Amino acid sequence: MLDLAIRGGTIITAADRYTAEIGVLEGRIISIAADVGKARTEIDATGLWIMPGGVDGHVHFAQPTSDGSVMADDFASGTRAAAAGGTTTVLPFAQQIKGRSLRSCVEDYRAKAIGQCYVDIALHLIVTDPTPTVLGQELPALVADGYTSFKVFMTYDDLMLDDGQMLAVFETAQREGALVMVHAEGHDAIRHMTRKLESAGRTEPYWHAEAHHRIAEREATHRAIAHAELIDVPIVIVHVSGPEPLEQIKWARARGRTVYAETCPQYIQLTADDLKGFNMDFEGAKYVCSPPPRDAASQEAIWQGLADGSFDIFSSDHAPFRMNGLQNTGKDTPRARTSFKWVPNGLPGVETRLQILFSEGVSKGRISAERFVALTSTNPAKLYGLYPRKGSITIGGDADLVLWDPAARTTIRQANLHHGADYTPYEGMEVIGVPLHTLLRGQMIASNGQVTGRLGAGEIMSREPSGLK
Amino acid sequence: MLDLAIRGGTIITAADRYTAEIGVLEGRIISIAADVGKARTEIDATGLWIMPGGVDGHVHFAQPTSDGSVMADDFASGTRAAAAGGTTTVLPFAQQIKGRSLRSCVEDYRAKAIGQCYVDIALHLIVTDPTPTVLGQELPALVADGYTSFKVFMTYDDLMLDDGQMLAVFETAQREGALVMVHAEGHDAIRHMTRKLESAGRTEPYWHAEAHHRIAEREATHRAIAHAELIDVPIVIVHVSGPEPLEQIKWARARGRTVYAETCPQYIQLTADDLKGFNMDFEGAKYVCSPPPRDAASQEAIWQGLADGSFDIFSSDHAPFRMNGLQNTGKDTPRARTSFKWVPNGLPGVETRLQILFSEGVSKGRISAERFVALTSTNPAKLYGLYPRKGSITIGGDADLVLWDPAARTTIRQANLHHGADYTPYEGMEVIGVPLHTLLRGQMIASNGQVTGRLGAGEIMSREPSGLK
Amino acid sequence: MLDLAIRGGTIITAADRYTAEIGVLEGRIISIAADVGKARTEIDATGLWIMPGGVDGHVHFAQPTSDGSVMADDFASGTRAAAAGGTTTVLPFAQQIKGRSLRSCVEDYRAKAIGQCYVDIALHLIVTDPTPTVLGQELPALVADGYTSFKVFMTYDDLMLDDGQMLAVFETAQREGALVMVHAEGHDAIRHMTRKLESAGRTEPYWHAEAHHRIAEREATHRAIAHAELIDVPIVIVHVSGPEPLEQIKWARARGRTVYAETCPQYIQLTADDLKGFNMDFEGAKYVCSPPPRDAASQEAIWQGLADGSFDIFSSDHAPFRMNGLQNTGKDTPRARTSFKWVPNGLPGVETRLQILFSEGVSKGRISAERFVALTSTNPAKLYGLYPRKGSITIGGDADLVLWDPAARTTIRQANLHHGADYTPYEGMEVIGVPLHTLLRGQMIASNGQVTGRLGAGEIMSREPSGLK
Amino acid sequence: MLDLAIRGGTIITAADRYTAEIGVLEGRIISIAADVGKARTEIDATGLWIMPGGVDGHVHFAQPTSDGSVMADDFASGTRAAAAGGTTTVLPFAQQIKGRSLRSCVEDYRAKAIGQCYVDIALHLIVTDPTPTVLGQELPALVADGYTSFKVFMTYDDLMLDDGQMLAVFETAQREGALVMVHAEGHDAIRHMTRKLESAGRTEPYWHAEAHHRIAEREATHRAIAHAELIDVPIVIVHVSGPEPLEQIKWARARGRTVYAETCPQYIQLTADDLKGFNMDFEGAKYVCSPPPRDAASQEAIWQGLADGSFDIFSSDHAPFRMNGLQNTGKDTPRARTSFKWVPNGLPGVETRLQILFSEGVSKGRISAERFVALTSTNPAKLYGLYPRKGSITIGGDADLVLWDPAARTTIRQANLHHGADYTPYEGMEVIGVPLHTLLRGQMIASNGQVTGRLGAGEIMSREPSGLK
Repeated sequence: MLDLAIRGGTIITAADRYTAEIGVLEGRIISIAADVGKARTEIDATGLWIMPGGVDGHVHFAQPTSDGSVMADDFASGTRAAAAGGTTTVLPFAQQIKGRSLRSCVEDYRAKAIGQCYVDIALHLIVTDPTPTVLGQELPALVADGYTSFKVFMTYDDLMLDDGQMLAVFETAQREGALVMVHAEGHDAIRHMTRKLESAGRTEPYWHAEAHHRIAEREATHRAIAHAELIDVPIVIVHVSGPEPLEQIKWARARGRTVYAETCPQYIQLTADDLKGFNMDFEGAKYVCSPPPRDAASQEAIWQGLADGSFDIFSSDHAPFRMNGLQNTGKDTPRARTSFKWVPNGLPGVETRLQILFSEGVSKGRISAERFVALTSTNPAKLYGLYPRKGSITIGGDADLVLWDPAARTTIRQANLHHGADYTPYEGMEVIGVPLHTLLRGQMIASNGQVTGRLGAGEIMSREPSGLK
Repeated sequence: MLDLAIRGGTIITAADRYTAEIGVLEGRIISIAADVGKARTEIDATGLWIMPGGVDGHVHFAQPTSDGSVMADDFASGTRAAAAGGTTTVLPFAQQIKGRSLRSCVEDYRAKAIGQCYVDIALHLIVTDPTPTVLGQELPALVADGYTSFKVFMTYDDLMLDDGQMLAVFETAQREGALVMVHAEGHDAIRHMTRKLESAGRTEPYWHAEAHHRIAEREATHRAIAHAELIDVPIVIVHVSGPEPLEQIKWARARGRTVYAETCPQYIQLTADDLKGFNMDFEGAKYVCSPPPRDAASQEAIWQGLADGSFDIFSSDHAPFRMNGLQNTGKDTPRARTSFKWVPNGLPGVETRLQILFSEGVSKGRISAERFVALTSTNPAKLYGLYPRKGSITIGGDADLVLWDPAARTTIRQANLHHGADYTPYEGMEVIGVPLHTLLRGQMIASNGQVTGRLGAGEIMSREPSGLK
Repeated sequence: MLDLAIRGGTIITAADRYTAEIGVLEGRIISIAADVGKARTEIDATGLWIMPGGVDGHVHFAQPTSDGSVMADDFASGTRAAAAGGTTTVLPFAQQIKGRSLRSCVEDYRAKAIGQCYVDIALHLIVTDPTPTVLGQELPALVADGYTSFKVFMTYDDLMLDDGQMLAVFETAQREGALVMVHAEGHDAIRHMTRKLESAGRTEPYWHAEAHHRIAEREATHRAIAHAELIDVPIVIVHVSGPEPLEQIKWARARGRTVYAETCPQYIQLTADDLKGFNMDFEGAKYVCSPPPRDAASQEAIWQGLADGSFDIFSSDHAPFRMNGLQNTGKDTPRARTSFKWVPNGLPGVETRLQILFSEGVSKGRISAERFVALTSTNPAKLYGLYPRKGSITIGGDADLVLWDPAARTTIRQANLHHGADYTPYEGMEVIGVPLHTLLRGQMIASNGQVTGRLGAGEIMSREPSGLK
Repeated sequence: MLDLAIRGGTIITAADRYTAEIGVLEGRIISIAADVGKARTEIDATGLWIMPGGVDGHVHFAQPTSDGSVMADDFASGTRAAAAGGTTTVLPFAQQIKGRSLRSCVEDYRAKAIGQCYVDIALHLIVTDPTPTVLGQELPALVADGYTSFKVFMTYDDLMLDDGQMLAVFETAQREGALVMVHAEGHDAIRHMTRKLESAGRTEPYWHAEAHHRIAEREATHRAIAHAELIDVPIVIVHVSGPEPLEQIKWARARGRTVYAETCPQYIQLTADDLKGFNMDFEGAKYVCSPPPRDAASQEAIWQGLADGSFDIFSSDHAPFRMNGLQNTGKDTPRARTSFKWVPNGLPGVETRLQILFSEGVSKGRISAERFVALTSTNPAKLYGLYPRKGSITIGGDADLVLWDPAARTTIRQANLHHGADYTPYEGMEVIGVPLHTLLRGQMIASNGQVTGRLGAGEIMSREPSGLK
């Protein structure tokens, strides 16, 4: 007998849409049928859309910072928020601290996650110090252990690599068959703009959006693509904010390069004007992230790219910092008040990612539900080596599911969210489409906005080689 | 109890790949599961790939011609060949004869099909005489009856519309929500080139490829796109032969236009050199089709477009003419020997379409099996309003399946084919991947190269509105 | 002793700018020097810019029409206006009347010009009926006689060629080394739009701009370029109205094609809104021309093209029709009041061409004075085989000069103009830069807004082969 | 009475071509006329083309190097070679040595030139150490003194600036109205490739062309353009080697950016294969320059750019090193034999520049003689603030002239050259078109391959603001 039967719903995958029952046994989908037979538990999904649980390919939880700021989410709160939002797998980053062994950083970070997750997780690496040991020994061993993707930064003093180091990491990735994720913003251009703005007394949070200029993002995207071409290695350009970097990505693809592209909710829902807060006050700090949101025309270009397949995945880039109550550790510190450059970069988003794309995309007719599934679940699962266990609704796959009421309406409110941040950049946004129930391996872990799962139920997965086929 | 259980195979859809059993009852898939239970009939698919049966969106059977040539396939032989090749649905064209009512032409053509099909069929229309009655009364009624797509020709004396007529048809399609398929080659340019070549004594079949110049195809593609933009109607550019028309299609899409693109086996497997036959002899007539195959660089561009999603569908454009034995009715007539312009245009291909794309695309690693399914089955089914009954492997859908042995090797030989033509342009081609069994609504209709289905088993379907979502 | 010395001015050519005296003898420049010595006549050009007299490559005078409308300028008034505006050479069109010999039309038209010109002229041909005799005998003979360019129309019932005829003319031009000028607007698209607008009761002059849609211009431009490429013949796309056709031209050039581009004052100074007149009244008829002026963004694109060298020449496309006083022969006829499609197409512009480009271009810093000279004189003279006799300031060239006061300001007023039209579309426009004196072969023919030349002083020139080197 | 009259020749400028006499007094052209009258000296130029003397905007003479190599030309030999080749003005670089005052470096370098020049010179600056003093005080003062252009390097350890320094220099240039010349090659990419090649034992001169990869040039070009856009400053991309960087330049221009482009003889006449020498021997060192020559397709793209106006100027990038006889100071040193990376970068070219472009361009019909003049003389004179004294043939300008025999044929031989290098990369090249006589300010300084000028006759000029109008 089945552990669970879900009856009456419409199943939606990256390619298909049909009505059927789903039968689950021991956490896996074992049947999809007109009638799956008896089950110990039943869910009536009549009128609901059953989609694969969200796979969020880009989240930051409990990551170390060099400036003393503290992320508002650890694994517990971050994965709790994911569950509430319909996401059943997240990929945080095990970050190397400069001067330290990458392997030891990974082990430390992994230790923090054990027993602390509400949803399944898998780890990307962040390489900040590509010593010969890291490149020649640690990375090959880690890739072999299932850490098949690593991220590099082209800006941020404590994270960035210079071009020579980027090339060395690309070469290692090429040799080991790993995938490199690139944060593409030009460091020197940002620093130059920052100094100029500071000299002019322009220090409010809003000026962050000017300092992190779209030209700096476009240039770094071109540079990353060029160096990846020189080495002949696939890369992912993460958090693309507008048409300029996207144009570079398309230009590369037209010449046959493999360059994947990711975008995020902030680039379809926010603009630089949000950083103005109320009359240029510090409220704008809530919206400080990098690259910053741009303007309405950029949003349109991102939508075009989501619809036409230019973007492969849609992630949250969840990087939560509190505004209040944590002096010197969140966004609102004495130093941050002196210049935008001290405001920690990042927004919370793991919980609201799916709902925003569903409402603005599917409900408003900009993208199909099938494409929604591809962008938020199937493609990230495939890209990062988690498929077919994650990312779709197939026999043998984990019964990670999210049951949507496509017609329900609600309003996003911080009061209803589960993340550790003390605000949401989307406060008051009205959405159509609600993730009613989230199931992780057949277990209901969130329902009607309440997290019902168990701390520690989430597992840490190893991964297959990265890369969309 | 199930009518049929297929066990042990790997199911491949446009998005997924996994191992499961498939249960069929009354011609429909009613379960996909680790174990579907008992069945009256069983198929052991161990080691095989189970894909949705092919949907060929572009075939010509028993179509009238103005020059007395006779197509080598009627519905019986054409659908028999389809079944043998793994295709379970084909879309022939009900062609209006100039001066006649479109409706009466459709009825006549439909009558020829009744009881004569081995696989399911649905009909496109061809509009050749867009009178006010046709535009204002017949087409709206036919669209309402499920004929939701129609084709127009920009060349061929007996079929072509001028630009004003094209615009009128586009406007009707826009109003009725139908989809227009466009044969895009510039008539006047072709005629000019033909005269020039004939004046120079260049009359052998090979010169057909020069007369149907790639500039003529590019220009007509641009013109069709421009006029569709003026009317704001989606169109399909059929049988794209190379990078020039594809560039125009991409240019339109970058400006937000809905322009679908189709390509065919001849554009990845043949080149204009094939029209040379042996030393420019008449053997080249076998390869005369429009647009003609181009060159190796064009083939590469077509592959790039198949891989990157530029092409939505891959059809055969099956248009069979015999070389021998049918004096004055096939390719080799006294008149055709005087000039390439009298050689009937078209190649047989409905039976070999899947095998060629599978072997050259999937087996050689140019495209994934999932993309193969999308191009040959899911997308044409969706584009032409046959999904979800056709085009995928889902609960409730017709059990139209093709079971592939991905590792088997064979050689394409006319002797083994079932179409009415007396040759195949792919004679001697070695392929990897064989469609072992074809099932139509749960019934085996072809197996190991033998057609086992029943004449008349194929149905004539009505269609939903056309258009990929 | 010199006939004339011009002292103190700044000479500006397409490449150079320097101060020198100019010495003229028997109508030709024979010295340019710090001091040219004694002369019978002297002009003090201190503070003035001396440029080569304008060469207007595109004017319509006394051309036959099929609808009974009468052009407001004959050779006398048209060349008088040219002289007043600083233009010393114009190129009207000898138009073939369908059904007639081209040669006889040319001779008739030529006869009208004899003794009637204030400035020099040379004739283009218009081919409307490319019979075998025209293509095989008349055109070759006319080219040999110095008629080295001919224009073809893709729209207008009484002028247009179909694509097959265009190809035939292109082929003749290619063989004879002549240059084809193309009026590129898609006839069927215009007709379709016209019917649609008329059906909706949209018949005021404004709707002309909607009927002559920018897509129709872009499409025809592409088509002309494609067919020219097929034949491998250089062409000129005349009166480019905006970025869409210009994009097509650039695309062709990037592939190595020789496609010249012309634009006109109406496309930098007017917009479609001008066709609205006062509240959509018939006043808008004054601005009806084809292609119509577009919008502000198009104007910007045209300026960009003038500055960066995309445009080779800047002509007036002078095609003057009166508004009043000539019942049934000008723009305001009973029939024209029933539909925009009966309003004669064309604007007066030969007199204001230079002043508008100088003021908006040179005075406002959008283009250099050197580029002004290139666009309005040197390039058209070279393109149409009149250089070095016309188009620059060199020893041995005709002393055709225009002396500008670059700082003077004036306002364009119909009251001050010399053309035969009874209005100017630029009424009230304030300009900086005034053509103070115009000299034809050393003779002052216009000064301070007064025409002082002699009727019949202008000659009819034969031309060398067309084409910019 | 004139000092000099040149009679019978055809004068060619950037815009015009006509026959006239030229009269010179006190070094300046004072008359151009059918008959200039009497003169103390006469030159019979019958059958010759009279063009403005070449202006070479990019030469390296006696520049300091950090590796002990010694340039083969000082001012005396370099300008002697220029004179012999028809060039009458050269622009060497006053290079800042890191750690030193720029002004003092300029003064030292200037001192070397005094009394040592056969042709006129003007100096660019090279900024290698943009300290606050250099940016805030020295550069503004130097710009005011007529040093209105400076070059920056994106590679070479002893010369390169990082992106932050580039931005600072761009900002200074923007403020002071100066023009920045950019050597655009990506340092880290070159270093990465160099290490990789060395590790593989690929150390012969040929591998220099692989290390200085075209992707590295394209990327750096994009980066320079992006940063110039951020600052809104015009730049010159010097020595463009192929279509990849040119594509970036065109992309920038299409968005309205001012980016000038230079190319050089090595990119139309040499390929990377030349670096192979004889069977990969050290002979290849003769052709080592940066960026390296590419391939035949790149040459074609450069020609296309020369013809269509994509390139503004054509310079030599003369950087001469001897192969023999100067142990440890030229190309062939013990260290250079261990790796291509120690081979001094640069080729001699100041003497052969004009002849190569004339022969391959004008004589072979790829570009007009007028464009030849624009590229080699008028445009560089204008771009670098030397016009109208230099760069054309106008009244008041210096009588710097080169008299060509367009039909004469000769062969380039080191034995006949005047530079300090001991080889020419163009040895044995047959050319059509010979610069028979070179005149500097009216004085014959070279004739029939012999330098007849006087050491010290060349002056050091100050310059007007840089920038093509």
